Amino acid sequence: MRAVKLWAAFVLLAAANLEGETGQRAWLRYSRLDDAEVRTYRKDLPAVVVPLGQGLLIHSAQGELLRGVRGMLGQTLRVESKVPPEGAIVLGTLDELRRAAPQFHVAVRLAPDGYVLKTIYAGKLRYTVVAAANERGVLCGVFALLRKIALGQSIHGLDEKESPYAPIRWVNQWDNLDGSIERGYGGRSIFWDDGHVRSDLSRVGDFGRLLASLGVNGCSINNVNADSRMLASDFIPEVARIAEAFRPWGVQVVLAVDLGSPKILGGLETFDPVDPQVAAWWKTKADELYRAVPDLGGFVMKADSEGRAGPSAYGRTHADAANAAARALAPHGGLLFYRAFVYDHHLDWRNLKNDRALAAYDNFHPLDGQFDSNVVIQIKNGPIDFQVREPASPLFGGLRKTNQAVELQITQEYTGQSRHLVYLVPMWKATLDFDMREPRAGTPVKALVAGKAFDRPEGGFVGVANVGLDDDWMGSQLSQANLYGFGRLAWNPDLSARQIAEEWTRLGFGNDPKVVATVVRMLLGSWRTYENYTGPLGLQTLTDVTGNHYGPAVEASERNGWGQWHRADERGVGMDRTVATGTGFVGQYPAPVAAIYESLANCPDDLVLFFHHLPYTARLHSGKTVIQTIYDLHYDGERAASEYVNDWESLRGRVDSQRYDQVLAQLNYQAGAAEVWRDAVTNWFLRASGIADGEGRVGRYPGRFEAEKMRLEGYMVTPVTPWEDASGGQAVECLEKRCSASLTWDGAAGWYALRVQYFDQNKGVSRFLVWVGNQLVGKWLADDHLPAAKLDGSSSTRHTIAAVALRPGDEIRIEGVPDGGELAAIDYIEIQPRGREATGTAILRHSRAVRLRSVFTPSD
Amino acid sequence: MRAVKLWAAFVLLAAANLEGETGQRAWLRYSRLDDAEVRTYRKDLPAVVVPLGQGLLIHSAQGELLRGVRGMLGQTLRVESKVPPEGAIVLGTLDELRRAAPQFHVAVRLAPDGYVLKTIYAGKLRYTVVAAANERGVLCGVFALLRKIALGQSIHGLDEKESPYAPIRWVNQWDNLDGSIERGYGGRSIFWDDGHVRSDLSRVGDFGRLLASLGVNGCSINNVNADSRMLASDFIPEVARIAEAFRPWGVQVVLAVDLGSPKILGGLETFDPVDPQVAAWWKTKADELYRAVPDLGGFVMKADSEGRAGPSAYGRTHADAANAAARALAPHGGLLFYRAFVYDHHLDWRNLKNDRALAAYDNFHPLDGQFDSNVVIQIKNGPIDFQVREPASPLFGGLRKTNQAVELQITQEYTGQSRHLVYLVPMWKATLDFDMREPRAGTPVKALVAGKAFDRPEGGFVGVANVGLDDDWMGSQLSQANLYGFGRLAWNPDLSARQIAEEWTRLGFGNDPKVVATVVRMLLGSWRTYENYTGPLGLQTLTDVTGNHYGPAVEASERNGWGQWHRADERGVGMDRTVATGTGFVGQYPAPVAAIYESLANCPDDLVLFFHHLPYTARLHSGKTVIQTIYDLHYDGERAASEYVNDWESLRGRVDSQRYDQVLAQLNYQAGAAEVWRDAVTNWFLRASGIADGEGRVGRYPGRFEAEKMRLEGYMVTPVTPWEDASGGQAVECLEKRCSASLTWDGAAGWYALRVQYFDQNKGVSRFLVWVGNQLVGKWLADDHLPAAKLDGSSSTRHTIAAVALRPGDEIRIEGVPDGGELAAIDYIEIQPRGREATGTAILRHSRAVRLRSVFTPSD
Repeated sequence: MRAVKLWAAFVLLAAANLEGETGQRAWLRYSRLDDAEVRTYRKDLPAVVVPLGQGLLIHSAQGELLRGVRGMLGQTLRVESKVPPEGAIVLGTLDELRRAAPQFHVAVRLAPDGYVLKTIYAGKLRYTVVAAANERGVLCGVFALLRKIALGQSIHGLDEKESPYAPIRWVNQWDNLDGSIERGYGGRSIFWDDGHVRSDLSRVGDFGRLLASLGVNGCSINNVNADSRMLASDFIPEVARIAEAFRPWGVQVVLAVDLGSPKILGGLETFDPVDPQVAAWWKTKADELYRAVPDLGGFVMKADSEGRAGPSAYGRTHADAANAAARALAPHGGLLFYRAFVYDHHLDWRNLKNDRALAAYDNFHPLDGQFDSNVVIQIKNGPIDFQVREPASPLFGGLRKTNQAVELQITQEYTGQSRHLVYLVPMWKATLDFDMREPRAGTPVKALVAGKAFDRPEGGFVGVANVGLDDDWMGSQLSQANLYGFGRLAWNPDLSARQIAEEWTRLGFGNDPKVVATVVRMLLGSWRTYENYTGPLGLQTLTDVTGNHYGPAVEASERNGWGQWHRADERGVGMDRTVATGTGFVGQYPAPVAAIYESLANCPDDLVLFFHHLPYTARLHSGKTVIQTIYDLHYDGERAASEYVNDWESLRGRVDSQRYDQVLAQLNYQAGAAEVWRDAVTNWFLRASGIADGEGRVGRYPGRFEAEKMRLEGYMVTPVTPWEDASGGQAVECLEKRCSASLTWDGAAGWYALRVQYFDQNKGVSRFLVWVGNQLVGKWLADDHLPAAKLDGSSSTRHTIAAVALRPGDEIRIEGVPDGGELAAIDYIEIQPRGREATGTAILRHSRAVRLRSVFTPSD
Repeated sequence: MRAVKLWAAFVLLAAANLEGETGQRAWLRYSRLDDAEVRTYRKDLPAVVVPLGQGLLIHSAQGELLRGVRGMLGQTLRVESKVPPEGAIVLGTLDELRRAAPQFHVAVRLAPDGYVLKTIYAGKLRYTVVAAANERGVLCGVFALLRKIALGQSIHGLDEKESPYAPIRWVNQWDNLDGSIERGYGGRSIFWDDGHVRSDLSRVGDFGRLLASLGVNGCSINNVNADSRMLASDFIPEVARIAEAFRPWGVQVVLAVDLGSPKILGGLETFDPVDPQVAAWWKTKADELYRAVPDLGGFVMKADSEGRAGPSAYGRTHADAANAAARALAPHGGLLFYRAFVYDHHLDWRNLKNDRALAAYDNFHPLDGQFDSNVVIQIKNGPIDFQVREPASPLFGGLRKTNQAVELQITQEYTGQSRHLVYLVPMWKATLDFDMREPRAGTPVKALVAGKAFDRPEGGFVGVANVGLDDDWMGSQLSQANLYGFGRLAWNPDLSARQIAEEWTRLGFGNDPKVVATVVRMLLGSWRTYENYTGPLGLQTLTDVTGNHYGPAVEASERNGWGQWHRADERGVGMDRTVATGTGFVGQYPAPVAAIYESLANCPDDLVLFFHHLPYTARLHSGKTVIQTIYDLHYDGERAASEYVNDWESLRGRVDSQRYDQVLAQLNYQAGAAEVWRDAVTNWFLRASGIADGEGRVGRYPGRFEAEKMRLEGYMVTPVTPWEDASGGQAVECLEKRCSASLTWDGAAGWYALRVQYFDQNKGVSRFLVWVGNQLVGKWLADDHLPAAKLDGSSSTRHTIAAVALRPGDEIRIEGVPDGGELAAIDYIEIQPRGREATGTAILRHSRAVRLRSVFTPSD
């Protein structure tokens, strides 16, 4: 019986509200508004809601309206099936509305999923109408109305019409069937576990609701590196269960499929896309799928890329491959997304003309016009791979007769993996607003991908979301802004990054002006901050590109076939991609764009080393040399990251303590990681260039004491790889049960912060204790889950002991206790004065060595 | 190794801070102060702490100081063993201080556990000295210093001297060895589980710290209805483990013992207290105990009471019984607490001269002078048993040559069991400040119990705490104020109830003025509120005195041997306890006090029915009749309870959401329970007296619809016992799988709150759904743990659906789904207009019956 079946969901929801601010409700918190606001909205809101028609999405829309109003205003709207002779909120498609309430005369043209919010007077009665071209539009309209209330916007005299910018607003999940997620940082898969669909899909429904609130209308549910089992007949019921969980929210399920399926799964001798047997197999499979999932959105296909099977095996083109599957989907209205992320990862790095950036355009531009009308080429925002900064892919301008969609990455693969605060909307805006000047000036990328520029029937936005089972979905509270931001941009890319940040902050943390101003400022600066301390000037994220894509590893991209080269050597740095002297990549752009990038005079500093190889001593537009700019920006970035901690601390008491503590811990971690990045990159370039930092900072760290130079008991010195990831290139490891590293303080007496830089590998939980004399002043466990088993910049992290009074002669001793192969490794300790404010009136003058005693108390 | 052993505690503590505001840290939260406060205190606080001596409590004091300063100010003090040539905080006993720093010239007289906080200048150096007569005093002083910082008080020029008012400041726990707690509302025992000491005693250490912060110096660890196993030789190591957990906090373990132990446990043929074998057994046992627990505080003994073994079995006196055990304790400095709670619970109620109130004085006054000097008579505050209001026990004035202590009940046995907000400090103050005029006017009870009036060596305060394993210790967040209040009063009973309430609120919820003002106001009014809706005018708590002591049951005290009679009949109410015409109890008081209570002209209204039997038409000092006063006060109390909800809601956003939600749920429950109480008592007196409420309220409930009068499908009408606990004396129960009760609304159209009064028994989790037409407007589980298996005022509770728009013709239907013997019983539904403010502009005029459809959505 339905009521019984749905009971569990209700009870779970109630429990979620009592368990506090976990982040699971994200931007749909519907917290009670202030009393004054409640009074205002109660006046403006009718008591009755009239859902027109019996559609499932209308039902969801009406339920959401009740839920939101109950949460924010504390009252339960009444539901009626006909427009009553009293004020009411009327929900329905335009067709239903014309039938049920012709007197309203709502006559507008709306794109699919678009809606109107309109206040209509009929005599003295006031109606609030949410009408749309289709049911999903009604749902979008209800979410928009609730958002207005949550944001404190007037709903008194509504007259709004919204249509989505593009028909495609999808997310991709890179979930493996075993429940892991490739490049996912928010926990295990909400869809899969141990090779099968999860029994409890409640989080899928919750995710569908979050997506629906943004107007996102499709979601691929498995890794683009697809398991061919996805299409197996006995697996289809599992897919159908997920579709059922999404369906009330108008989110279409999409499957990532393997081009090799006809052979691997179907038992054919070939998967040659032009083979009639293969085409027949695809058709039979699609028919079977659509019988189980009639609203399936389609397929996404990654072929001939990073080892995946592809049409090249039979000398066929990508168009052949795409069309084979697309023709099977076409009768059902399904789309075939073909990823343009195709490149040779065995490029010869010794050939200076080779360039991975060339690949997408080279592969797909010649095929323009050969793709069927239900094929969409899914193009990453930049020519490489979600780096911290890339120019827009020239392929956006290179397809006139082919549908395209931009692929943005919500999951922060190269941008801090939810451990670093990076609000990606400004980065995405940089691409979407970029004027490709094709077919003419004033053609931003968003217009190209939406199909507006060349009047294509399909087009839009795909975001790689990778949410997981963690309460906060993303692995951090603030990273939710990226999922929200993607959805809002996909609906309307003309929204500013600031407006989206402000909406998200208000919805997530309430309308306290100080909270809103502070969080918005932090969000808006965060991309630049991260870029500055990782890879500025178009260097890209200077990370381990063949591994975890996380910590610093300046040379990891060089001298291998993966082609993410920056070509730094002892004389200079940068990839010469010019037509004149380089790889010719610039020539893929329309001429007016190429003219900008080809010329050093015009090329913006932010991308200069992406397009040009420059000597370290070359001067940028800023007037500074390349090398000094690298130094300065890394110091700027690290300083900005450390200031986030202060910014956030200024919100103590204004943000619920649960999220306050979580975010503070994250920002403290980030501040430490930014210092690791700063030092790694600047030291690497110092060694490469041999040119000293004009500010005298790089290589000189006042107050820093290298572990390898301390008095060691048990600890052994070990080199770290890459060398730049540890200060001085070395750390110490404990090969005994317990080791210590100590020093005698000979600085001035005063209050100091002690920062221990240690390595928290993911293979054990070692322990650390810090003593000053015989007094234990700090202890902690190395129990974070950083993405590194070895000693490097990914496992390097720090613990700060905020304020301890030191005086000359004090012995400072760090003890490490290894665990499970994690050897309690230490890089250094920094001893930083706390400043006059903290010193107080206690003047610490004496320099005698003092006898201390243990202060280790049971409850301390 | 010590460090390793203590590691767990440190990690747990860190985790506790991250898990949010559970209440476990109680008033020792040490939350970071505002930046401005931090700066001020950092200036005033030296960097160094010098603990003098090696004592365990000095060690705890120093650790607590570090912990508190680290939490509130974010810095780690340095520990030195000698007074340094710089400013420092110096901790130590006066003896140690004279040895280590004779230059400080601290010469004061302090009682044991008393302390001085003193700023001392030595040249330009400033020292903060915490000194005391003994180590526990130093610990008390450190907690006082930290409390000052948390409260925002200046610590610049300290010159304070504090001594405790009395030497005995103990708590009793009524924990059974199986892990249950008699009259405990905060979860299972922190000491015992399944017949043995718990393996994890971390909560015992935490509790010891809470007690130490108040200066409480002893804790009995088992029920006064004692299991004789407590003294078994093989059990003593278990006791010793608890003593070890308490010892760092200076809290002495006390055992409740059974007078019958020599026979039951020792195998003697008698437990006759004057038998030499018995005396020898007690001595041997005490010696054995003190070998294992050298700092044992002593015993507490309940004998000849409520079925316990006692000296009467051998024709001996209470003095014989007490002295037998006391002489065994004396060589070790142990105390024997003998409870004065001795009465005949087979009293003949037909004899109007019988009076349980007489018992304590009658039993113990004649023995004055016969108790050894280490015996303390433990006297409940009133002559009955922790009722909502009682006069002070006359026994306080009846012992001149015997030590005494007052027994106060922190656990809210008769005062709402942590479900109702009742701040007990004003009630305790009423007793402690009561002038017993013995030996002379100006002798408050506190002076008598502290031994000051008759210069006794021992005396003081015992509180029945009954904390448990629940995160919040007490079963509710706000009930912690009672534990705090008891400790503060035991230290200094001259503190005002307001000052204690304000301290507790600031320590627990911070210094936001609105929070402080609101919570303090709620606390201070709460006892009077609870008294008003339960048993005003000295009627005592009109509850089931032979059962759960919780819900209303006006006649439960009558016509049985337990003697908690109020003698209400058709003509009048009250116990005549006068000398002239009643039981003569008034004569136990010193003459000047007796003169007050004997005379109707002098007896205060608050206690008038405790001392006098009055016709319902008698007029009180207020000028109102007795019966009208009963009516009015119950309505006053219910209204005040419902206003707590509004008070608390005004703090939304100012209190962490975790505790905010918990307390709000509790106050909502209380508001409903207060209505049950109000109606039960007023209807009972209406029926008894036959006199109508002059205000026309009792028996008339506009908007209330009795379930038994609704259209029932499946539901059967059932009588409720006692009849006054259900509206109309009846409820409906569902004997099928699902039942419904419905009505057709014929009131005006508008916004209404729907309040369903149902029964949540403790034997199942039934479900309820409320529909208006076909629209589900509310659903919930009856999953509270109220103390009743049957239908009565203890299981009666309500669910409110805040605001629904109704119009004439609407069908309102309550569906119940029984579970596990709980029959989804309903008493009534109240439909209350929400007022103009809530109605808004939607004028609901039409009265047609509307067709509605289900609005039950998956995620709603």
